[in-house]
Amino acid sequence: MANDKAEREEKKGLSAKKESSFSEWYTQVIERTDFVDYTSVSGCIAFRPNAYFAWEQVQKATDSLFGQAGIQNVYFPMLIPEHLLDKEKEHVKGFSPEVAWVTHTGNSKLEERLAIRPTSETVMYERYAKWIRSWRDLPMRYNQWNSVLRWEFKHPTPLLRSREFLWNEGHTVFATRDEEEAERDLVLGIYSRVLEDVLALPGVVGKKTDSEKFAGAEASYSIEHLMPDGWAIQGPDFHVDGQRFAKAFDITFINKEGKKEYAYQNTFAISTRELGAMLAVHGDDKGLVLPPALARVQAVIVPIYNDGNKELVIRHAKELEARVAKTARVYLDGRETYSPGWKFNEWEMNGTPVRIEIGERDIKEGKAVLARRDTGAKESVELSKAEKRIGELLEGIQKALYAKAKKQLDDNTHRVDSYDEAKRLIKGKGGFVQAGWCGSEECESKVKEETGAKITNMPFDAQHAVKGKRCIACGSAAKYIANFARSY
Amino acid sequence: MANDKAEREEKKGLSAKKESSFSEWYTQVIERTDFVDYTSVSGCIAFRPNAYFAWEQVQKATDSLFGQAGIQNVYFPMLIPEHLLDKEKEHVKGFSPEVAWVTHTGNSKLEERLAIRPTSETVMYERYAKWIRSWRDLPMRYNQWNSVLRWEFKHPTPLLRSREFLWNEGHTVFATRDEEEAERDLVLGIYSRVLEDVLALPGVVGKKTDSEKFAGAEASYSIEHLMPDGWAIQGPDFHVDGQRFAKAFDITFINKEGKKEYAYQNTFAISTRELGAMLAVHGDDKGLVLPPALARVQAVIVPIYNDGNKELVIRHAKELEARVAKTARVYLDGRETYSPGWKFNEWEMNGTPVRIEIGERDIKEGKAVLARRDTGAKESVELSKAEKRIGELLEGIQKALYAKAKKQLDDNTHRVDSYDEAKRLIKGKGGFVQAGWCGSEECESKVKEETGAKITNMPFDAQHAVKGKRCIACGSAAKYIANFARSY
Repeated sequence: MANDKAEREEKKGLSAKKESSFSEWYTQVIERTDFVDYTSVSGCIAFRPNAYFAWEQVQKATDSLFGQAGIQNVYFPMLIPEHLLDKEKEHVKGFSPEVAWVTHTGNSKLEERLAIRPTSETVMYERYAKWIRSWRDLPMRYNQWNSVLRWEFKHPTPLLRSREFLWNEGHTVFATRDEEEAERDLVLGIYSRVLEDVLALPGVVGKKTDSEKFAGAEASYSIEHLMPDGWAIQGPDFHVDGQRFAKAFDITFINKEGKKEYAYQNTFAISTRELGAMLAVHGDDKGLVLPPALARVQAVIVPIYNDGNKELVIRHAKELEARVAKTARVYLDGRETYSPGWKFNEWEMNGTPVRIEIGERDIKEGKAVLARRDTGAKESVELSKAEKRIGELLEGIQKALYAKAKKQLDDNTHRVDSYDEAKRLIKGKGGFVQAGWCGSEECESKVKEETGAKITNMPFDAQHAVKGKRCIACGSAAKYIANFARSY
Repeated sequence: MANDKAEREEKKGLSAKKESSFSEWYTQVIERTDFVDYTSVSGCIAFRPNAYFAWEQVQKATDSLFGQAGIQNVYFPMLIPEHLLDKEKEHVKGFSPEVAWVTHTGNSKLEERLAIRPTSETVMYERYAKWIRSWRDLPMRYNQWNSVLRWEFKHPTPLLRSREFLWNEGHTVFATRDEEEAERDLVLGIYSRVLEDVLALPGVVGKKTDSEKFAGAEASYSIEHLMPDGWAIQGPDFHVDGQRFAKAFDITFINKEGKKEYAYQNTFAISTRELGAMLAVHGDDKGLVLPPALARVQAVIVPIYNDGNKELVIRHAKELEARVAKTARVYLDGRETYSPGWKFNEWEMNGTPVRIEIGERDIKEGKAVLARRDTGAKESVELSKAEKRIGELLEGIQKALYAKAKKQLDDNTHRVDSYDEAKRLIKGKGGFVQAGWCGSEECESKVKEETGAKITNMPFDAQHAVKGKRCIACGSAAKYIANFARSY
């Protein structure tokens, strides 16, 4: 038993520093906390209760806003026959190198290979073509929550670059271009709200360049996050497909004038990659720091007692638990064989937003001690006011985490006019280098080749400044303000 | 436009009768309602909004009860390396004939084939072995909501026998046999409650015979439904695995005495097959009859107007909608190009529990007409009391559907003592033939070969009557009361 305990003690604590060795730190957080784990399938991970609960909160918040917006949930098969995947040429070109193929079932070889969905356009749209007949059937705005598989050959990183991941995929159909386009801001607004309210993650909303857009889309939009190492990572996205898939899948409708027309389509997604970005942005050298909105346990009570006062302390701890349960997901850690110090470490490592300490001295004063995970700040609270104060604290922590991350994002967004400065920044501490761009693929490629940075997107809120700017690569008049960054 | 409309009209209505040609009727319900649809992958279906919403209600109700019982959600990969699937011999024997194998990713052949999960024991337990070290880590009660694939070669039937289906799979681990066994009644109780409260489906709870138990389990328990054609279909199940998987996967823990022990495990599931059973049991010759608890639209308002009174009727219909929204998921069908009669048919076909008709005459009387989908009964209700009355009606319909199905189940459960009578019943109208059984596999096989009926389970609530009964096959003393039925 001593050994058993020692083995556990040994596991605890991170040695890598987030600031100086982010990649090593990230790996240690994955390996030493109870969030996710590797499995025997390379690139596919197991979501443990804390991680899956966090994903459920992202799902619930998004789904509720989708529902209010009139988007309905459906479910389509995970397998796609090869001939369907082949229908839209750009789409298949983008995805087929990463597809996992089912060739046999039981002991029989299949006549046609089946792809595990890397995304579901093709399997859905074949049905859409059948279901949509008339303008009265439109708009048809469906969404599904599912898992997809993309067998990327780059080094997989849990959550950030997993071969299987969970996501929503919205696939909506409209009779007119105007309605199609109006959905973009609605959906990007929903994602932004979930990012802030649940994940406490800020992002840069903008349009992708043509060379970076989704395989098969007319235009793509994204929300880009900044990682602690100065690299960007793409978050939720939205794709305007126009009539491209409609033409490939013959999705037509009879319009009010009795004529046949192709429909307009959008697709959009948010994935479990967000949990990786959340973990990376908020975590610290002690481990995870979970935003309260997605923490399975928001407040943990650690009772501090000895043989003499155990009964008294546990009784008060239970009363406190019942009280705090009114405003928070609270857990009383009454495990007998662990010391309070050991418990402090474990809950801290796993990112629990608030720790509540209660011992005999506290009880005599009618108080408990509250410790914030994000700042480490401690305060004393009257037992009778604990639920109110903890409710406030959780709200405050959620906002503080977002504000801190937003400041980091802003501090690491560099508006530059010279290519030399851009290069220096990109090769140095990274971040978003915001600069003029003429709009040519040539200049985009040149910067990528010479610096390793791509255009992550063209931020909506930066375009007002384009007048008078020059392209950092060629010096001609800028058409857009673009964010350049090395990207995951 | 006339053609377009005619095409739709034509689609409507069932010609097959449920009573006389159930299988044809079932196919027509699938093909002509907006519930599910076939796809280009044989045996895999698309869940349209009404069906997916229904599944979400089953999920939410089950998940909430699991949560209260302390079961936590997780998510594991959909792919299982062949060597893992092979670890438990009975398990792999049961599933490998139905496994879909991934052999290639992109253009590369994999070194080891990967199975799409037919169930997740093997991919989960490999991790459990790592996570569980000490008695303090137990019980560990995890569950996941996911999709699984079983490439059965029998004729697939949408929902009832789909190759891909959605389900929960609970996989729990305990330190002692007692705790493991105590979970059985808890989980079967949760499933029974969801069946009644959401699906309005009764079932027979009991133990499976050894030859019918789950591949790898020590003992299996099931809830069996009766279909309108007198055949049984297995609903939710619960498997006591004892230490079998623990031994295959080395799931051990250090007990309080410091000794290493194998853990005890259970698994349990409810699947989208329930939606097929629900559809079959409640539907009628007009189409679907949805229990209110799982209907996406519980009450539809169909306004009846002409050019002269349109504004008046729509205004009152909207007021009514706002009122009814307090107690029901209500939808105002204001589509202009369809007649009220056409709308009545469409909503009826799709099983909407309550239809609300409102026209000028009703408005003048301060009333609306309510029509129940299950009985066809109509009543007039004062507009000011509509929300209350509709709330009552929905509750009443849910209970009435369950009561009707329960009566059908009871009326078609035949307690017999003679093998001849059993044979006559099985070959005739079917149902559950409840009789004594000696417990031998020989007699079980004999009955199956001679009548086509297997033992669906040994109902808990029938065992009290075993004393003095004889086995219907061999005439020796009965050990159990068993339900015999032909089964899907």
